[in-house]
Amino acid sequence: MKLSKAIQNCTDDPMLSYRALARQAQERGIEVIGLDNSQPDSSTSDVFFAAAGAYVPEKLDYAPAKGLSIMAEALQNFYRRRGMNYALEDILVTAGASEALMFAMQCILDPDSEVIVPEPFYLSLRTVITVCGGQIRPLFTTPEEDYNYATREKIEALITPETRAILLCNPCNPTGKVLTRPEMQLIANIVKERGLWLIVDETYREFVYDGEADSFGQLPSLEQQLVLVDSASNSFSLGGARVGALITKNREFMRASAKLAQARRSVATLNQVAAAELYLMDDSAFSARRADYARRRDLCLEAMRAIPGVVCAEPSGALFLMARLPVDDTGRFQKWLLEEFDLDGQTILMAPGSCFYSTYGCGRSEVRISYVVEEQTLLRAMEILAEALRRYPGALRG
Amino acid sequence: MKLSKAIQNCTDDPMLSYRALARQAQERGIEVIGLDNSQPDSSTSDVFFAAAGAYVPEKLDYAPAKGLSIMAEALQNFYRRRGMNYALEDILVTAGASEALMFAMQCILDPDSEVIVPEPFYLSLRTVITVCGGQIRPLFTTPEEDYNYATREKIEALITPETRAILLCNPCNPTGKVLTRPEMQLIANIVKERGLWLIVDETYREFVYDGEADSFGQLPSLEQQLVLVDSASNSFSLGGARVGALITKNREFMRASAKLAQARRSVATLNQVAAAELYLMDDSAFSARRADYARRRDLCLEAMRAIPGVVCAEPSGALFLMARLPVDDTGRFQKWLLEEFDLDGQTILMAPGSCFYSTYGCGRSEVRISYVVEEQTLLRAMEILAEALRRYPGALRG
Repeated sequence: MKLSKAIQNCTDDPMLSYRALARQAQERGIEVIGLDNSQPDSSTSDVFFAAAGAYVPEKLDYAPAKGLSIMAEALQNFYRRRGMNYALEDILVTAGASEALMFAMQCILDPDSEVIVPEPFYLSLRTVITVCGGQIRPLFTTPEEDYNYATREKIEALITPETRAILLCNPCNPTGKVLTRPEMQLIANIVKERGLWLIVDETYREFVYDGEADSFGQLPSLEQQLVLVDSASNSFSLGGARVGALITKNREFMRASAKLAQARRSVATLNQVAAAELYLMDDSAFSARRADYARRRDLCLEAMRAIPGVVCAEPSGALFLMARLPVDDTGRFQKWLLEEFDLDGQTILMAPGSCFYSTYGCGRSEVRISYVVEEQTLLRAMEILAEALRRYPGALRG
Repeated sequence: MKLSKAIQNCTDDPMLSYRALARQAQERGIEVIGLDNSQPDSSTSDVFFAAAGAYVPEKLDYAPAKGLSIMAEALQNFYRRRGMNYALEDILVTAGASEALMFAMQCILDPDSEVIVPEPFYLSLRTVITVCGGQIRPLFTTPEEDYNYATREKIEALITPETRAILLCNPCNPTGKVLTRPEMQLIANIVKERGLWLIVDETYREFVYDGEADSFGQLPSLEQQLVLVDSASNSFSLGGARVGALITKNREFMRASAKLAQARRSVATLNQVAAAELYLMDDSAFSARRADYARRRDLCLEAMRAIPGVVCAEPSGALFLMARLPVDDTGRFQKWLLEEFDLDGQTILMAPGSCFYSTYGCGRSEVRISYVVEEQTLLRAMEILAEALRRYPGALRG
């Protein structure tokens, strides 16, 4: 029996081995501070659980394939509050952003189609694009350039006749990079000139710390080529609900997505009923939470920059900071942190940079640090990192 | 911007147009009896809602990609009660059977790989196989032969070097056909001889009316080639929960599926927590429900066979009866039922046979009738069908 070539080309989750080592360290009595999460640590609103508990139908029926209308209307309302006007037909409710991304790739990729993706990127994308038969054309970036990818020269150099789309995560997991309005306009111009799809994962939109959170949905001229991917997971600390959306004004794209939605029947009914309530709440909770994460970002950034040899891009959004460390292989360094190091019984788990690069050998001196732990823990984690770099036998001394 | 060839080759849901006509009929004041559902009408157990309401964590986290352990353990227990011993590593929790089927196809299909599927089949399968680049090789059946497909001759005639798998739904949606143990053994022998995967959707396993419900998981020699697809949707009237499973003892297949599971993060946490409770309950509710549906099947079958010109296969399981009607096009007949006919203000909505055939022109004189309505309504629906066939201008008079 054969397995598909595509699935064989997909990688196992690279974090699995580090998480296994972290469990072993914990079993030895070491406290491991996790700086490896990709979702906020804020608690989930009681409103969600109250709505879920109050929903007791005679029979838990399938929702419509395109989503419950209360959910689509709640999303419509949420976007309207952000200056975006979507018709209900522009919104497909999905099982989180990951389903929306899979649908988008299944809709546009033929065997050997190419997708331009700024690198580093969230590695699940590789699985999603590869199983659809596509190829990633990585748009290489560095911490020295603040992980900036939005230049005409860089992007156009990657466009070939096989290019179907540019796929972005903005604000970016893993780099925290947030595009400026002129950068967004530049990308919009390129996709318009070249007739490409622009797929944008905006799941960290509510986590922008410097200035306003812009959405590609606010650029009026782009709409026929734009597919937005969104999720309740980060916006509402609702990862376990698996509620998200695919949004486009392109009716052909939406009709194509609807075929996929039909084939998977529906998104969980109870979760839509309860999540809809959160999308309808006023936005005051977002600004408080934003201020909280901005403070953690600042603390983390300051501490990182004080460590000799660290090159740290300044992240304007999301929940991450990505940096080059003065070591030749952060994977090996992380292994050492879990196997051979502790500072008074504590160590840290970060995500090694190679977890976010598909280009062989790239990202090996980088790490992604999630600042989704409390301030005191975060400061302590930075202390541990600084001390570990002082003691690490493999550290590069400048 | 281009859409993929694969998605363009997928069809829209063929029932959409009939459901739109049904709504129009309702707006004219006609009562439309729905015989088009694919899930049971039994109510959902209170146990599910109680468990869902009681689950109020601080934060609704992602479940592990492979599923919550309480859910996997509940499935393990459920299968053990049915004579099947699965390790927890053999079980991947999925968002319903549809996600499990998509994963299975993504794991095994290269461009132009072939999958043998008995026809008629549930049309979502076409979308699932087509977006994975595969081709369906339909195993043609007829109501005159009780939709039987399990002969060595029929199956072997379709095997080519591109064949990767035989994909079955047993008990079958749409035909109600249930394989006998010797038929199951025959298919097992063929896949073993030919080195093929056997993917079996057993989501209607709890709905077998004549004799015991067998599972391919009970055939010991097959295990390395078998992938079972299951779901809580039918077993527990839990369609809206989107909880199901992919089950296999083949570790390579499971490792491949795990990559896809990782890329979509998880199945909704709350739904797993609550569904697990139902899998752990004793099985007494199944036998009562089985007796209820068996009675409806008998009533429906008897009424259908009394209608002149109808050829009705005897279904042994699932919730459907499929029949050839004395009309040349059941799609046109169904349209007429909704647009031009009523019996004292009532009409019926069935699923025209062409909804279940990918071979052009096939199934046009067939219909699928779901007997998931109460007995009196079912008898009335049969009366309406008989009278409609008497009056229908397009009926073929024998």
